[in-house]
Amino acid sequence: MRIALDGMGGDNAPEAVVKGALHALAETPPDVEIVLVGQPEVLEPLLERENASSPRLSLHPAAQVVAMDESPSVALRRMPGSSIRVCYDLHKSGEADAVVSAGNSGATMALGAVVMGRLAEVDRPALASAFPALRGPTLLIDVGANVDCSPLMLMQFGYMGSVYAERVMGLSRPKVGILSIGEEPGKGNTAVKQAAEHLKNSGLNFIGNVEGRDMFVGETQVIVCDGFVGNVCIKLVEGFADTFEYFFREYMAHSIKARLGGLLLREQFRDVASRLDYSNYGGAPLLGINGVGLIAHGASSPKAIATAVKMASNTVRAEVTRHLAEGLEQYRGRLLGDIAHS
Amino acid sequence: MRIALDGMGGDNAPEAVVKGALHALAETPPDVEIVLVGQPEVLEPLLERENASSPRLSLHPAAQVVAMDESPSVALRRMPGSSIRVCYDLHKSGEADAVVSAGNSGATMALGAVVMGRLAEVDRPALASAFPALRGPTLLIDVGANVDCSPLMLMQFGYMGSVYAERVMGLSRPKVGILSIGEEPGKGNTAVKQAAEHLKNSGLNFIGNVEGRDMFVGETQVIVCDGFVGNVCIKLVEGFADTFEYFFREYMAHSIKARLGGLLLREQFRDVASRLDYSNYGGAPLLGINGVGLIAHGASSPKAIATAVKMASNTVRAEVTRHLAEGLEQYRGRLLGDIAHS
Repeated sequence: MRIALDGMGGDNAPEAVVKGALHALAETPPDVEIVLVGQPEVLEPLLERENASSPRLSLHPAAQVVAMDESPSVALRRMPGSSIRVCYDLHKSGEADAVVSAGNSGATMALGAVVMGRLAEVDRPALASAFPALRGPTLLIDVGANVDCSPLMLMQFGYMGSVYAERVMGLSRPKVGILSIGEEPGKGNTAVKQAAEHLKNSGLNFIGNVEGRDMFVGETQVIVCDGFVGNVCIKLVEGFADTFEYFFREYMAHSIKARLGGLLLREQFRDVASRLDYSNYGGAPLLGINGVGLIAHGASSPKAIATAVKMASNTVRAEVTRHLAEGLEQYRGRLLGDIAHS
Repeated sequence: MRIALDGMGGDNAPEAVVKGALHALAETPPDVEIVLVGQPEVLEPLLERENASSPRLSLHPAAQVVAMDESPSVALRRMPGSSIRVCYDLHKSGEADAVVSAGNSGATMALGAVVMGRLAEVDRPALASAFPALRGPTLLIDVGANVDCSPLMLMQFGYMGSVYAERVMGLSRPKVGILSIGEEPGKGNTAVKQAAEHLKNSGLNFIGNVEGRDMFVGETQVIVCDGFVGNVCIKLVEGFADTFEYFFREYMAHSIKARLGGLLLREQFRDVASRLDYSNYGGAPLLGINGVGLIAHGASSPKAIATAVKMASNTVRAEVTRHLAEGLEQYRGRLLGDIAHS
């Protein structure tokens, strides 16, 4: 199994990516190989410095780099040799089984959809993210691929999330909810209200509206939302985690008693921090493309990169693309709106 | 000064409201009076039980109660004697200077707008909520009054939030941002991108896009969003606070070391909890109506009710309605879209 890893993508690239690749090799079974994609003149010296020679790690050249703030359409139309595109080209040609990038997420999503193509029943691929909740991870879908969503797209997200939760997260008949502003049916904006009607007739284990506060409970295993709301939410949680850490550091800097308390609770603080640490949740899978694409956080540390690579290998092993295609196939009529619209 | 307080509204009404009224009387200057509105047969025995006789507290009868899950349109069209409506009727006739309700928020917003009318420059009133942030409270607007928002409505929210932040929160030239999914201009959904263009030309101290994580920083004092996104966000933060508390209670229940640490950090935990406790932030003001309406959290405790009453009295004292009308007047052309649309 070969994972194409974008060596140039991310705020801390290329160092964090190279280090993350080495971590990942140490933590995955020996059949997992990594193809590091990027500018050889940049990556080779780094690999040498890290003393990284492994038969499981190879370098594949890509001349161009998509800047973090580049517009996705430029990456799509004018950069045939970008590291992100070359990753997907390798995946498309079968030389790689999955793609991991912490680079420009808009470009990664666009190139994933364009190079790999979409599954037959899907209008628009969506980004899913496992969200830390009390009773285990909850899958939030979409967290940023589609900012303006039709009710039909939202329903498709429900199907994709449900199949993914079943196949990769190992949940049977996962509960699917739609993020809204009240639990009662009929609450929400226009798109959400219509999507809830579709989902009610979807054959999925749809439990209705869920609210912001339910995201932390984990009663609902798949939460559907548009990519604008989902993205705001995951960044809000990040901000919360940072703020929480900041406060307790301040407390401890200013009081010996607090410092002692902090020492006694060190394990527990670590536990909370780890539950909130996106780097433990790996990359966000781009569901609905005809392949496996994982988008890691732009600020990914080596550990986050390693987690994303491991997650990619698990996703490939679980044959998610095949299961998604088959799972969606049985809902074909509903997914394409024939039933939903009737 | 007289505050009309909906005695029947909220998950814990009428007990929590009656107790909250008594707290509020103890904590406000003697010129603040409370008119408790609701069914006398329910409220009178409670007042007797609480031994509440004060010349500053009076009872005004209202025969009907809007259930928490009642549709706002039913409350609007078929319940002329509801406690919420009677509160606003008292405000309209000048017998009260502000309204506080923890009841059905949809009905409270609808009745506030219909009974009081809107300010001349405002298409739709919006609910604003002070959000706990590192550098002091940030005003999030809208947090639930309008689920589908046009770019022009979003711009108006920016004006209302800015005037409120200036007059009630005491901030000079408050920084206004729009909630989006990336800091770069051009990121966001269709409505947000257009609203950002309007806001750039608004004459406000507009700093551009802010992200979910920025909500906790407090660099931006007024954050504009549609009521759907805003409502999801405030409930997400509530869920986070509850989860945080749950975790530490569990830790302490299972480890003596953790319990001791918790004791040493007791003050700090209280500080964090209090920063996250919506009941310290009072009600959410409904801005853009021709009057003062505060919507308290449905689950309001007596303390939360008292905070909302205090906040209402501060809002009346700050003459927010007059300042909003005057402040908006100077932006009249832009607010009505003459400039924004050109």
